[in-house]
Amino acid sequence: MEKPVIALAMGDPAGISPELTAKVVALDEVRKAARVVVIGDRRVFDQGAKVAGVDSSLDDFVDLKHLDPATIKRGVASKEGGASALANYRHALRMAADGKAGAVCFTPFNKQAMRLAHASYEDEIGFTSDVLGFKGAATEFNILEGLWNARVTSHIPLSKVSSSLSVDSIVQALELTATALRAAGFEPPRIGVAALNPHAGDGGNFGREEIDIIEPAVRKAKAKGLPADGPYPADTVFVRAKAGQFNAVLTMFHDQGQIAMKLMGFDRGVTLLGGYPFPICTPAHGTAYDIAGKGVANVGAARAALLLAAQMAQTALIPSGRA
Amino acid sequence: MEKPVIALAMGDPAGISPELTAKVVALDEVRKAARVVVIGDRRVFDQGAKVAGVDSSLDDFVDLKHLDPATIKRGVASKEGGASALANYRHALRMAADGKAGAVCFTPFNKQAMRLAHASYEDEIGFTSDVLGFKGAATEFNILEGLWNARVTSHIPLSKVSSSLSVDSIVQALELTATALRAAGFEPPRIGVAALNPHAGDGGNFGREEIDIIEPAVRKAKAKGLPADGPYPADTVFVRAKAGQFNAVLTMFHDQGQIAMKLMGFDRGVTLLGGYPFPICTPAHGTAYDIAGKGVANVGAARAALLLAAQMAQTALIPSGRA
Repeated sequence: MEKPVIALAMGDPAGISPELTAKVVALDEVRKAARVVVIGDRRVFDQGAKVAGVDSSLDDFVDLKHLDPATIKRGVASKEGGASALANYRHALRMAADGKAGAVCFTPFNKQAMRLAHASYEDEIGFTSDVLGFKGAATEFNILEGLWNARVTSHIPLSKVSSSLSVDSIVQALELTATALRAAGFEPPRIGVAALNPHAGDGGNFGREEIDIIEPAVRKAKAKGLPADGPYPADTVFVRAKAGQFNAVLTMFHDQGQIAMKLMGFDRGVTLLGGYPFPICTPAHGTAYDIAGKGVANVGAARAALLLAAQMAQTALIPSGRA
Repeated sequence: MEKPVIALAMGDPAGISPELTAKVVALDEVRKAARVVVIGDRRVFDQGAKVAGVDSSLDDFVDLKHLDPATIKRGVASKEGGASALANYRHALRMAADGKAGAVCFTPFNKQAMRLAHASYEDEIGFTSDVLGFKGAATEFNILEGLWNARVTSHIPLSKVSSSLSVDSIVQALELTATALRAAGFEPPRIGVAALNPHAGDGGNFGREEIDIIEPAVRKAKAKGLPADGPYPADTVFVRAKAGQFNAVLTMFHDQGQIAMKLMGFDRGVTLLGGYPFPICTPAHGTAYDIAGKGVANVGAARAALLLAAQMAQTALIPSGRA
């Protein structure tokens, strides 16, 4: 069976990304699942391998030769560090866009460093769409041990959430979620939709968005053959999902999902950027400046990110498996 | 040491309340902590004791002789059932108001039955304040294994939350929370305050309520000597509390706390009505019509409710312990 290729961009050099990159590509399980091409500066990678105590030999390396590790101070966000991570990521995205990789992964970025290097940097979605010239709908999924969370709105004030919801935005989010779940091997996927108001509005007593927007959206999605169920009160939908009733929960706003996911241990989870022609995965945790260079960084989330990317890229290699 | 008196009102007779009442008063631990006076119909209690398989002998019983258990169908909400629960609860409240009990507890009510018996029944807070002629601020606390949650707003549409917040409403909620925590033995109490917007507003980028309302409220509360800390992003404040940083989390709206509490297993927890001259405690779970009469109801939450009420009533018996 043909192994998918993953373009793995090295993230911020001042944190745990170098050691994490070296550690994750050294895992047998990852090597079996995919051919991983690392993009970065070889000297940074080699130093990461030394910190992690793993073999630094690796054939598939694109050496951009743009960053001498001696110029980077561990634990400090810098313009140079941000610029190197952006260059690595850009290269990885182009590889996938050119068909040379089936998925992209990256080890953690530092937002402050990214902004020092690229003032207009807002978040990964904005940057990725810019680099790819992608005009479609992209979204972020948070994934923890087989439980997915997608959201209809994200970085907006809570007071604007209600007016930002529409039947179409919810149906679109359900489409993106179903497509991504299928690519990851969930067939049929089961998506629970969260309500907006307390007690799902209590029949209109505590708000009408369930009646006027969310229920019609779920009906419309079902009519299109999408696997949507709800709306369920936000304080029980994750309990249901955790018990196995759903693979994914679609939440209406940022914290509705994040409260639940972080409480369940999302730091061990994976963030997937979905909606693009190929999957983009990264560990959910950050650059962990406080433990950088100590060789104690846990590779679990990076491993999960690589394996999810491999699984989704593998599905895309099989014509019948295409979503 | 003088034992506090708890007036325990029997809840809905069609669910697990009769067996739960009999089971919880039979516990040595509860008998040691308080003198529990049960209020209800003795025949309903005796039937509950039979179902639970516990000794039905009990000296402290106020027999209202208002409900023949033969007239109640298990698993069905009825006007008669609701009326009996309301009568029991009213009697318990009056006992405490008259100084004959230091705390009130009740086994689960069924909201539908309550409304059949008393059309204007909205929730426990409204009914309790009516019976007591109480004009002050009362609030509901949700408590799970030493972790408390209080909220500034509750059963209102999400779109109205922002406009319902004020410096004064937050400070008042902090006062109620600190007072209740102290009565329950937390000294000094530690209260984490949740932000409203994603990433706590990200410095004003995703909403200004943190800057304009919540931060000033925390400052004002601290100036009054109240133990408040925050605002913290809502998706990390419960992670902090769970790790031991806080005894209580003050959330800005209903689901912000309920998502976290239910995920942690709040069905095993306790609801406390605070702000009244005496504590009122009840298990967080409902009437469990599906398992009523089978003798399998778990007494854990009722036990926790009685023990919390006993602890708070005990504190009130000691002059120096008054909050």
